[in-house]
Amino acid sequence: MKTIENISRMSTFVKMMKKEGKSIGLVPTMGYLHEGHLSLVKAAKKHTDVVVMSIFINPLQFAPHEDLEKYPRDLKHDEEMARTAGVDVVFYPSLKDMYPEGYATYVTVEKLTDNLCGESRTGHFRGVTTVVIKLFNIVKPDVAYFGQKDMQQALTVKKMASDLNMGIEVKMMPVVREKDGLAMSSRNMYLNDAERKDAAVLHQSLKNAETLIKNGERDAGKVMKAVEEMIRSKQSARIEYVKLVDARELKDVKMITGEIALSVAVFFGKTRLIDNTTITVR
Amino acid sequence: MKTIENISRMSTFVKMMKKEGKSIGLVPTMGYLHEGHLSLVKAAKKHTDVVVMSIFINPLQFAPHEDLEKYPRDLKHDEEMARTAGVDVVFYPSLKDMYPEGYATYVTVEKLTDNLCGESRTGHFRGVTTVVIKLFNIVKPDVAYFGQKDMQQALTVKKMASDLNMGIEVKMMPVVREKDGLAMSSRNMYLNDAERKDAAVLHQSLKNAETLIKNGERDAGKVMKAVEEMIRSKQSARIEYVKLVDARELKDVKMITGEIALSVAVFFGKTRLIDNTTITVR
Repeated sequence: MKTIENISRMSTFVKMMKKEGKSIGLVPTMGYLHEGHLSLVKAAKKHTDVVVMSIFINPLQFAPHEDLEKYPRDLKHDEEMARTAGVDVVFYPSLKDMYPEGYATYVTVEKLTDNLCGESRTGHFRGVTTVVIKLFNIVKPDVAYFGQKDMQQALTVKKMASDLNMGIEVKMMPVVREKDGLAMSSRNMYLNDAERKDAAVLHQSLKNAETLIKNGERDAGKVMKAVEEMIRSKQSARIEYVKLVDARELKDVKMITGEIALSVAVFFGKTRLIDNTTITVR
Repeated sequence: MKTIENISRMSTFVKMMKKEGKSIGLVPTMGYLHEGHLSLVKAAKKHTDVVVMSIFINPLQFAPHEDLEKYPRDLKHDEEMARTAGVDVVFYPSLKDMYPEGYATYVTVEKLTDNLCGESRTGHFRGVTTVVIKLFNIVKPDVAYFGQKDMQQALTVKKMASDLNMGIEVKMMPVVREKDGLAMSSRNMYLNDAERKDAAVLHQSLKNAETLIKNGERDAGKVMKAVEEMIRSKQSARIEYVKLVDARELKDVKMITGEIALSVAVFFGKTRLIDNTTITVR
């Protein structure tokens, strides 16, 4: 496994791979890897010749009050995990290389980013699409892999790639969960023991909602209320949102029909976690 | 010469050229070609193997009150001129192919677009950078050519390509002028005879300013005043701006030193024309 720490060397490597006719899979991460990331690597290895994992904590996608400073870092451990998973290149650019002085260009995807996390995390998705287009242009992947835990992010990046004719396939892969159902996230390490126990309620409440819908409930309000009640039963939980939206445009729905997504953002103590599930009702 | 009218066929052609190891030069235009455009083709032919000229009137870069509806169109004549100039492919995508229903992604370059034309033409540069990134992604040029008449546009596109790591060289080529010095522009055809005569004052006023500076004038205010007075002497002229800015960041300067640009936007009747000159003072 190679570790490449600057953009121009990454470009040279990519040019070489293209010349050899190799396809490239990209797994963009902010590091502090877990099984969720590794599932993306596994998918990439199946479909592409060369798997590049980027590790870059992107300040642009953190709002001023968010956890940029304390976001967990452990490059040594990440490299070890990436190597074991079969990553070919870890791309680890510096902040200065990515955003040199005078940097001024931003990509925005409208509409898809209005609801859900877009409502509270001002500038977050602009930060995501901006860093991802840079990574796409540097690594020139044939396929890029994102996890469904960050569904709104994956859909937004997919929309950007399509709107801007990037010729890159964006794949959204299933959420990977802990034994009790908690979605894997680098931020889970912020949780203390009580919060960690409480956080399992996210997945439980989504499963419960799926059951309600399977049993015929079509009123979005009633389903959201059931989810909220389950979450509120946990002492450390504070709900940011519980929403039922259509799974394509992420607009609120009142009646449950077609492809919908149930999406939640909840603080456990000071740690904000998100989760979601998509449901198709015919 | 090929004419390609849709994006996916253009992509197929580009893939073929890349496979053959050919370099691609792109000349993006809105059609109604003149010698200015052809000078870009000439430069492209010199440096790249395959010259693609795009012709697309981009609604995104026109404000609601601007001249989108009446912008001149003459594809037959354009094709003839392009063929004669040695263009290999005219890329002529449809509006629907470029901006399908639900289109939602935009690229902005900050700072560089604040001053000059950015002040009055709300959304103009966002429209330019958005269409250009799409053309860049479709045509994948090695080099793209822009005219210095639209200096702010050329610098903004160059900044976008660099900030977003596009690996595309953006070249700004000298203004091509009519015999009396008027910068070539598709919009010149809007002018009636009197306005056309008056419009020659733009270049004259720039030349006069160059002389003032050559003779030692360093006070930007005085130079701008001289330019304004010359332009105002023409009956059909109404000044939008006359500005002295530094040639890199396009910020207003008070003292003339280093590389500066003198940039003007003036209405002759209802037709808005722009021109500029860059001057280096040591």
